[in-house]
Amino acid sequence: MKLSHLLPITYPIIQAPMLGVTTPAMVAAVANTGGLGSLPIGGLSPEKASELIRATKSKTDKPFSVNLFTHETTVPADPDAIERMLDLLETIYKDYAIPFSRPALTNFRFYSYRDQIDVLLHEQIPIVSFTFGLLEPDLVYQFKRRGTTLIGTATSVQEAVLLEGIGVDAVVAQGTEAGGHRGSFLADDPLPQIGLLSLLPQVVDAISRPVIAAGGLFDARTVEAAFVLGAAGVQLGSFFLATDESAASEAYKTAVLTSTDTSTSLTRAFSGRWARGIRNRFMDQIEQSGLAIPYYTYQNSLTAELRAHAQQHNIPDLISLWAGQSAAKSQRGKSGDLLKVLLDQLTFGDEAMS
Amino acid sequence: MKLSHLLPITYPIIQAPMLGVTTPAMVAAVANTGGLGSLPIGGLSPEKASELIRATKSKTDKPFSVNLFTHETTVPADPDAIERMLDLLETIYKDYAIPFSRPALTNFRFYSYRDQIDVLLHEQIPIVSFTFGLLEPDLVYQFKRRGTTLIGTATSVQEAVLLEGIGVDAVVAQGTEAGGHRGSFLADDPLPQIGLLSLLPQVVDAISRPVIAAGGLFDARTVEAAFVLGAAGVQLGSFFLATDESAASEAYKTAVLTSTDTSTSLTRAFSGRWARGIRNRFMDQIEQSGLAIPYYTYQNSLTAELRAHAQQHNIPDLISLWAGQSAAKSQRGKSGDLLKVLLDQLTFGDEAMS
Repeated sequence: MKLSHLLPITYPIIQAPMLGVTTPAMVAAVANTGGLGSLPIGGLSPEKASELIRATKSKTDKPFSVNLFTHETTVPADPDAIERMLDLLETIYKDYAIPFSRPALTNFRFYSYRDQIDVLLHEQIPIVSFTFGLLEPDLVYQFKRRGTTLIGTATSVQEAVLLEGIGVDAVVAQGTEAGGHRGSFLADDPLPQIGLLSLLPQVVDAISRPVIAAGGLFDARTVEAAFVLGAAGVQLGSFFLATDESAASEAYKTAVLTSTDTSTSLTRAFSGRWARGIRNRFMDQIEQSGLAIPYYTYQNSLTAELRAHAQQHNIPDLISLWAGQSAAKSQRGKSGDLLKVLLDQLTFGDEAMS
Repeated sequence: MKLSHLLPITYPIIQAPMLGVTTPAMVAAVANTGGLGSLPIGGLSPEKASELIRATKSKTDKPFSVNLFTHETTVPADPDAIERMLDLLETIYKDYAIPFSRPALTNFRFYSYRDQIDVLLHEQIPIVSFTFGLLEPDLVYQFKRRGTTLIGTATSVQEAVLLEGIGVDAVVAQGTEAGGHRGSFLADDPLPQIGLLSLLPQVVDAISRPVIAAGGLFDARTVEAAFVLGAAGVQLGSFFLATDESAASEAYKTAVLTSTDTSTSLTRAFSGRWARGIRNRFMDQIEQSGLAIPYYTYQNSLTAELRAHAQQHNIPDLISLWAGQSAAKSQRGKSGDLLKVLLDQLTFGDEAMS
């Protein structure tokens, strides 16, 4: 099935949800150019989610998707591991002369996707994508009853088959090339790290729902290759990292634009979940410490203040520089203009692109 | 440049050199079908190399390539690490009731590619490919003087640029999807693990020589995608793993044919060099031991007898089950027949394929 038959968009090109990078302006720019913008709200409060959705709606009358983190948020904390990690973080704060105040574990609040469902239903979001897990049958039912299109994220054939099993309308196949968090929700030791060129056709062969290709795509060649491999659509992330609408700091954008094909690694250092980013001192220091890294959402909360400070003060050593293996090919410019140039370069016939 | 203008072949499809799997019969079958067969001789004695080349020539009058391991073979041994590894190997021998005799370090002999050059020149091999390194200027000169076509292997843009710099005629871009040993010869910590969909177009943009795509390719879709990404040719490995001409044991073939997209990992357990294979007990046991793994060529020599025994006696726990991320799509059959079916399925025009 063609993606433009499933989704109310002109072109089967999706802007990847990049929490901390994607802004309402980016989502609107992509939507207004005929693609699908994705607004990430994973872990945010219902009020913040609502605010971002309304800000996006104020900039476009086109439909867009909202992206959820559908993982378990009630993993028990390991207080000892958290205290040891805080000791290490304190030394990093000191190295950069950043004032440190030890947070109390009880202060952490990470909102579950379950807390966000009412906002999505109230705002009549037509497309809901999700990552880090499945979605319970009652939630699938609630969304389907309202005609919501559901898009899940898989990093292996087995994950794609499970997603099809719960009734999603399409599956994102996320290759190892992709920047940011891995969507993996089955075994993560070893973590699936399948290249998109291998993963995509194997997922296409295994399920009957449309498959959206993600990871390493950055130009007409790579987008067309994804369609040759059987994709019904493509999802671009790093493509939008350095745009005017990106919330990435100048230090982050510069790191991306001066990166190479070998600059990124997968790490759990920043959030406790595996994610791909440009290697920097923070990643090295946490990994070389040998400390057990508390699982997401704890590590994510422990490092949140430091990452925010680093973004504000342009300290690339300490920013989670999420980026894909093709991020070196990213460009500055307006999201809509870059997307238009890409669309012009696609030599694919109407069959694939409409 | 088209690969068939550079190489004396009909189709720009190369059978990957797979030491321990590739046989003269496999190389000849591919050559006789119009592709390029590759005979691997890394680490073998000049006599053995000569014997394999002659056996191949007896089965085909078509040209084929010979593949070298161009790495440094004079890395100093760490006797303590080797003794500790032998202690661990002894327990594994015992677990499987295999007679163990402790080898003397002085008995190891791993032939350098330098020892093999005379054989190649004498046998007038028209195409020489190599992996694990560069080739010294005097050797490049010797080959070029005789009109030999040289093909190097890169796992990153920087490696590709260095290969172009020494004067190779073409570069294999080996994506992380590929089975067997990584060709990486620059920093291996972190090891480049770039998906082919990201690596290939970045290498194509960075050098002017033709680029051959390797990793994860298994059918018409994936081969065509590689050409869309700018490849001048493709190299298939796991595609030939389970063929009649493969030297893989039945246990190995069965492991490949029952694998999935998530079955493989990169490991140094078998050889001391990073290689992709189907996870098995040997990999787990060596890695979980926490022992320092002696570098190639030592670890490769230490495990050689056990691996050979496991192949002969069909013990998949102990075989180095090298395979790529698309190996699940491998098929039994004659190498030439499988290649013909693939060629028939390619819908690409004459421009790319001739």
